[in-house]
Amino acid sequence: MSEEKEDKKNTNASELRQDIVSGDWVVIATGRAKRPDEFGNFQRAQDDKGIEQCLFEDPVASGQEKDVLIYHKPDGDWTLRVFPNKYPSFSLGRSTKPTTEGPYFSMPGVGYHEIVVTRDHYRQLALMDVMEIAEVFDAYQDRYLEHMSKKSVNYIAVFHNHGKEAGASITHPHSQIMAVPVVAPYVRLELDGAEKYHKSNKECVFCTVAEYESEEGKRVVFENDQFIAYCPFASRAAFEVHVMPKKHSPYFERITDEQKIKLAEVFGKSLNAIYSALNDPPYNFYIHSAPCDGGDYQHYHWHIEILPHTSTWAGFELDTGIEVSTIQPEVAAEYLRKQIQ
Amino acid sequence: MSEEKEDKKNTNASELRQDIVSGDWVVIATGRAKRPDEFGNFQRAQDDKGIEQCLFEDPVASGQEKDVLIYHKPDGDWTLRVFPNKYPSFSLGRSTKPTTEGPYFSMPGVGYHEIVVTRDHYRQLALMDVMEIAEVFDAYQDRYLEHMSKKSVNYIAVFHNHGKEAGASITHPHSQIMAVPVVAPYVRLELDGAEKYHKSNKECVFCTVAEYESEEGKRVVFENDQFIAYCPFASRAAFEVHVMPKKHSPYFERITDEQKIKLAEVFGKSLNAIYSALNDPPYNFYIHSAPCDGGDYQHYHWHIEILPHTSTWAGFELDTGIEVSTIQPEVAAEYLRKQIQ
Repeated sequence: MSEEKEDKKNTNASELRQDIVSGDWVVIATGRAKRPDEFGNFQRAQDDKGIEQCLFEDPVASGQEKDVLIYHKPDGDWTLRVFPNKYPSFSLGRSTKPTTEGPYFSMPGVGYHEIVVTRDHYRQLALMDVMEIAEVFDAYQDRYLEHMSKKSVNYIAVFHNHGKEAGASITHPHSQIMAVPVVAPYVRLELDGAEKYHKSNKECVFCTVAEYESEEGKRVVFENDQFIAYCPFASRAAFEVHVMPKKHSPYFERITDEQKIKLAEVFGKSLNAIYSALNDPPYNFYIHSAPCDGGDYQHYHWHIEILPHTSTWAGFELDTGIEVSTIQPEVAAEYLRKQIQ
Repeated sequence: MSEEKEDKKNTNASELRQDIVSGDWVVIATGRAKRPDEFGNFQRAQDDKGIEQCLFEDPVASGQEKDVLIYHKPDGDWTLRVFPNKYPSFSLGRSTKPTTEGPYFSMPGVGYHEIVVTRDHYRQLALMDVMEIAEVFDAYQDRYLEHMSKKSVNYIAVFHNHGKEAGASITHPHSQIMAVPVVAPYVRLELDGAEKYHKSNKECVFCTVAEYESEEGKRVVFENDQFIAYCPFASRAAFEVHVMPKKHSPYFERITDEQKIKLAEVFGKSLNAIYSALNDPPYNFYIHSAPCDGGDYQHYHWHIEILPHTSTWAGFELDTGIEVSTIQPEVAAEYLRKQIQ
């Protein structure tokens, strides 16, 4: 890395700016800044550099930050490690106080941004066995518990990008954890919706969905006694899959070791079915869990959303927020079930 | 086109399904459906087919639907035409009544989906002169006025995709108009935000922004006496530009001929600056205007949002709705201004 980049990283912290109309926040992550004239060629230059030049194959040798967590095989080689992102979107800072400019509000982008790397460059999550996947969830939980009680942290995003069309700039399988001071707008929408549904129906909306889908069956991809994977009735993307605990629980971080294995089975079979059905597509998945801002979120229900990229978000979606899917979730689920032995 | 596709189009209307948690709607557009096993290769096969095979170079010869609007040069050749999309996301139907399935709601995807095509295959909007761009806005307005009074239409989306990474499956410059029965969630957010701001400040939030940005100057890309283009304080994407009338107006469709020319100047210079600064990037733009559902939207203020694609929406954005931009809008605006003679 050039000294110039080092300098940028140290002197420019990222900034959260509030949209004056919607009230939502965006991050201006200048720690990852390029010069204005460097933006023109971005996407045409994101190709895989191969294992020889992989930054995550040997994170220590490639100059990554020091591990905050590492798991080993009994015989010694590491299987998973977590370290701070060298170019974080959120980083340590002294203050979370908002500042103003004219009619606008902003605040420092204080938080934590970590990378979770598994050992094998070529073995993506869709190809891992149950115990390997359970170990990944274990690492997520470990780091979640570490960050959730910190004063500046009100929400923790745990997500995974696979494939360059899904935003993975490095091929080696890795997830990211961002512990941030603002509650994610999408989670806020779900919290509000869940509360409203509970008021009207005296039931958790997610429990209602899990129960109905399990009975109905036609949108189910795979289920065991504790978790269900299904294509949502209002799928936003073709082959979208949600994975949910059947028993009500707002908080991912309270998952037990036994549940992690049950989750790994349902999640792994679903991801592998997507891999087979769509010919190793790019995808993202992320965990939606209740915020850790001290609020009471008993009506919420944590879950994982898997979004394969089979089309590009275009003008209509960006304009309206109404997403267009070109396959019925019932048809997608049936095709995914066929992939599972 | 194969007969099989014709059949699908005729027998499967599209469907709006409501997300049970958020209340938002998605479209299941089965009129554009592929078989489940056709999704695996999508993005790798979207390359430009060249002008010889262009479906919009001679829409009549390539079997597009009949024009609903056509503009000609004085000497005879057409300059712009509008026709219904052959594979619409929304189409005519008898009913807009919701139906239920278990706990879920859906309704037929009734509406209108039209394509606005300009004459020259190679002359994208960023390269057009003021009068050519004004003609495009004129066509948008013409079709908007045609659809807005229809009973099933409550919102009209007008948008443009340029480049395959921005969702343009056909290279030939074209915009789309979708007249739909539900108000776009993103516009709903803006309506709510604008109303809230008006209650607190007795002012239109968009007027406040236009005035502050024009005075401040550092985020302005270009302005004339009637319109201003600027990089928003809370930019969601690098080099995002908004174009807004300086005088308060909720309704795009009430724009005058003189204003269309003023708009075309500001919009055209901004789009051309983006083209130069980012080396012909993929981009989307769309008009946000007040819904045409009979509501009173005096607090709203129509505008255009231009979103260049200089990065991929990845897990964090999809997870949280918090967008990460890697350049300050002040720096982006300065660089865009440099491109304008």
